[in-house]
Amino acid sequence: MKIPKYVCAFKGKDFLNTQDFSQEEITQVLDAAKDLKEKFKSRVETPYLAGRTLFMFFYNRSLRTRNSFEAGVYQLGGHAHFLSPQDVYTPTLPEDMVPYKTESISDVARVLSRYGNAIAIRIYGDAAKWVIGRGHRVIEEFARWADVPVFNMEDDLYHPFQALADIMAAREAEPKLQGKKFVVSYAYSGGLKPLAVPQSEVLITTQFGMDVVLAHPKGFELEDSVINAAKENTDRYGGSFKVVNDMKKAFEGADFVYPKAWSPKQFVPPYSKTVDKEGASAYQGKFKDWITTRELLDVTNKAYYMHCGPADRGQEVTNEVLDAYDRSLYFDEAENRLHAQKAVMAMLMG
Amino acid sequence: MKIPKYVCAFKGKDFLNTQDFSQEEITQVLDAAKDLKEKFKSRVETPYLAGRTLFMFFYNRSLRTRNSFEAGVYQLGGHAHFLSPQDVYTPTLPEDMVPYKTESISDVARVLSRYGNAIAIRIYGDAAKWVIGRGHRVIEEFARWADVPVFNMEDDLYHPFQALADIMAAREAEPKLQGKKFVVSYAYSGGLKPLAVPQSEVLITTQFGMDVVLAHPKGFELEDSVINAAKENTDRYGGSFKVVNDMKKAFEGADFVYPKAWSPKQFVPPYSKTVDKEGASAYQGKFKDWITTRELLDVTNKAYYMHCGPADRGQEVTNEVLDAYDRSLYFDEAENRLHAQKAVMAMLMG
Amino acid sequence: MKIPKYVCAFKGKDFLNTQDFSQEEITQVLDAAKDLKEKFKSRVETPYLAGRTLFMFFYNRSLRTRNSFEAGVYQLGGHAHFLSPQDVYTPTLPEDMVPYKTESISDVARVLSRYGNAIAIRIYGDAAKWVIGRGHRVIEEFARWADVPVFNMEDDLYHPFQALADIMAAREAEPKLQGKKFVVSYAYSGGLKPLAVPQSEVLITTQFGMDVVLAHPKGFELEDSVINAAKENTDRYGGSFKVVNDMKKAFEGADFVYPKAWSPKQFVPPYSKTVDKEGASAYQGKFKDWITTRELLDVTNKAYYMHCGPADRGQEVTNEVLDAYDRSLYFDEAENRLHAQKAVMAMLMG
Repeated sequence: MKIPKYVCAFKGKDFLNTQDFSQEEITQVLDAAKDLKEKFKSRVETPYLAGRTLFMFFYNRSLRTRNSFEAGVYQLGGHAHFLSPQDVYTPTLPEDMVPYKTESISDVARVLSRYGNAIAIRIYGDAAKWVIGRGHRVIEEFARWADVPVFNMEDDLYHPFQALADIMAAREAEPKLQGKKFVVSYAYSGGLKPLAVPQSEVLITTQFGMDVVLAHPKGFELEDSVINAAKENTDRYGGSFKVVNDMKKAFEGADFVYPKAWSPKQFVPPYSKTVDKEGASAYQGKFKDWITTRELLDVTNKAYYMHCGPADRGQEVTNEVLDAYDRSLYFDEAENRLHAQKAVMAMLMG
Repeated sequence: MKIPKYVCAFKGKDFLNTQDFSQEEITQVLDAAKDLKEKFKSRVETPYLAGRTLFMFFYNRSLRTRNSFEAGVYQLGGHAHFLSPQDVYTPTLPEDMVPYKTESISDVARVLSRYGNAIAIRIYGDAAKWVIGRGHRVIEEFARWADVPVFNMEDDLYHPFQALADIMAAREAEPKLQGKKFVVSYAYSGGLKPLAVPQSEVLITTQFGMDVVLAHPKGFELEDSVINAAKENTDRYGGSFKVVNDMKKAFEGADFVYPKAWSPKQFVPPYSKTVDKEGASAYQGKFKDWITTRELLDVTNKAYYMHCGPADRGQEVTNEVLDAYDRSLYFDEAENRLHAQKAVMAMLMG
Repeated sequence: MKIPKYVCAFKGKDFLNTQDFSQEEITQVLDAAKDLKEKFKSRVETPYLAGRTLFMFFYNRSLRTRNSFEAGVYQLGGHAHFLSPQDVYTPTLPEDMVPYKTESISDVARVLSRYGNAIAIRIYGDAAKWVIGRGHRVIEEFARWADVPVFNMEDDLYHPFQALADIMAAREAEPKLQGKKFVVSYAYSGGLKPLAVPQSEVLITTQFGMDVVLAHPKGFELEDSVINAAKENTDRYGGSFKVVNDMKKAFEGADFVYPKAWSPKQFVPPYSKTVDKEGASAYQGKFKDWITTRELLDVTNKAYYMHCGPADRGQEVTNEVLDAYDRSLYFDEAENRLHAQKAVMAMLMG
């Protein structure tokens, strides 16, 4: 077996945010993902992580992330442990310790570093107490103490593997992304959702030099640090970035649309003293007209429809769009999770 | 390594109900199971599913099914994901969707089809809201949308892998099944149990041309469709099928007895407007004398005792029978789950 | 690949208590663990358990045990099933059966023996109803019925794999253990904890001929059977064993200290009619000064600090000791769980 050059290429790095990597590095990841996807489809064996163990902590539910990581590391010859916080002594930040139920992340990260080869974490929402950034701090704390790579499987700020899978799907649809209009838009949902996906989408698309429009009602602003990073990306990689408050206007002439719910941050710390879920829900409820319909897609430039899944049918998007729109990348994005994650694992854990 | 001819023999088919296969096809499965059982015992490696992933959804508890599938696919070189509904966004029929807790089966089936090679589901009872047939509809919905084989690990109508393991155990005990009397009998339990096992037993035994007697108190009728299919089996494969309401009379001269609890269907939809668990329990409580004792076995033709397990001791069967009866197939049936399932996986997922 | 001689050396034995093995046999285990540790670090493949399945039942939470067993058997080429009692019909002693929720251990052990190659169980505390010895009886019941080796992953009497990892870490720190002073001491915690760790530490250290001092307040006596076995060990293997009621006096001149919480047994059956958790907590609360501090370590002979983890920070031990003491074996003990368990698995399951 010939080991591809990308195996071990980024050995020892963490993968917490796409923004920690340059466009060139992300492109290397996507090339590796393409190679692994082709090998998967043609049933070529890829045991690049034989004997390697991945520890996965899921503080939140997951279908795509869990199954694509577990199947992915197995397809690379490795093995994943599925860890629910209730099955272990919940790994916890120093200020959140509860005797006999929690264990310090510093201990957990150091112990697992002796048994295996990478630690992956998903944490946001209730699990991170709805304090924006707390979930990300949990993952940073793991990264601080672990001797092995740490992967962000979605926290309250970023969902970097989703961004990888999405840009991969966009490139498969349109090989040349520069000059293409990519719309990241709010779409209504009754549920409370983190900022992770829209923030990572804005970051990855500006990193690839696209003309990026972020559309949302007032009150749904992303973090300033993300907005600033997106602008810096346009300085570095070309393209453009602007924010508008009108879904339809944003969709006009778009080549890609990514309409997805997130929640207004003024109802949760640090922007509010308390977590006001009712307030957030009530505020969201004013924007039920931010729904992706067939008619809305007609104003685009035959845009590709994108969503990380699961999409809230009848809220974020109509069934008609989800089941019958012929330029939907919905399942391709999900599929690419597998290949993008295998690429990162092979490059960092190998 | 020489790959046996049965690997891939039924590629792409689902396995939802033994009745979807002919006697000849089921015999091919049993022959494959025999080969795999011998290889397991003599420690011959059988990596026929190397690199293949099985997704297992358990809406209900399981000891035999979960462990035999997980160990089985591993012994074939593959890997199983154990998925609890609470760990994912519960895959759900369109009419049962709960925002942010469920995801449509159509999406789940299509996403997982891109990551791996088969989907297996167990769902009955509370998980299927005690509406007879709803659990089976969940599995059919998976089969409708999945691009990979779907396996029924027991629903509210059928338990086809149990039937396979059982007919395999019966054939090991008596190579010639034709002309043998096989009794599927109700036996008392305080618990509410689905129709799956008795229905699959009636179907598989009539498919093998046995003289089949179904014994139960009034009110414990199986589904008409199953009764009709059993009769059609006798037309096609010989043997006979009749229904009686007397446990002892049924046992007289029997070569095999399969006394097992299920619940009366007139207390649940669609046969009742509501789910009346108390009514069902109270009705069942009248039939505590439907218990398998040593004395009852004395009226048989030295019958083999069969049960899918776990048997309710002191209700369905006495401890004496379960622990000391020398013609019990109880553990052989459990053992054969492993080999029968490995055969189906090798034939369908390979 | 050359198979080491230790593979299969103890084929068919159970591993329930280190005391079931002689010093010579334990030394063989430690030598195998050393070999496996070196091979792990130099990335030599060790597929000595290819095709073998380990069933793990966790009635209690676990970080180290679960992950070291699951990663360990995978590194040996095998596969582990993680089984929560709620996912199966809880395996239960005859007197604790609850219809439709539990299954007899005798059945579970016999069924799983047909699917795989070893059964491992963790059970203590609430899961064993706080009746001292009931957890151990559960494991003995598995061992009675299983045809495959049974492993004790910690019950209410013993934690033999912890003892193995600990004596391995001690030997790495000080190759000659004879003549060294080893202190097993009570240390305060608000939580209710089993006797397993201190009992297994007293047993393994006396088995290796050390000068062992057990220190605890009155009321924290270990089981008489353990005290007697420890004394017998000194007769057989040299060294000494005594019990004192003063933490500081015990620490004086010590080469190793193992300060760890357990709970006073007079508040639980069979030493009390009922389980009096409040009484036990209140009694424990009198001994908050039994904490391991930097000052206390100063009276030792530059002792190595040991603890099975997770240590209760600010109760059993100060953060300063846990994070900055330079002769702490805390993470080495955790690490050695992996290698000691791999050794036992290779010797018993192989």
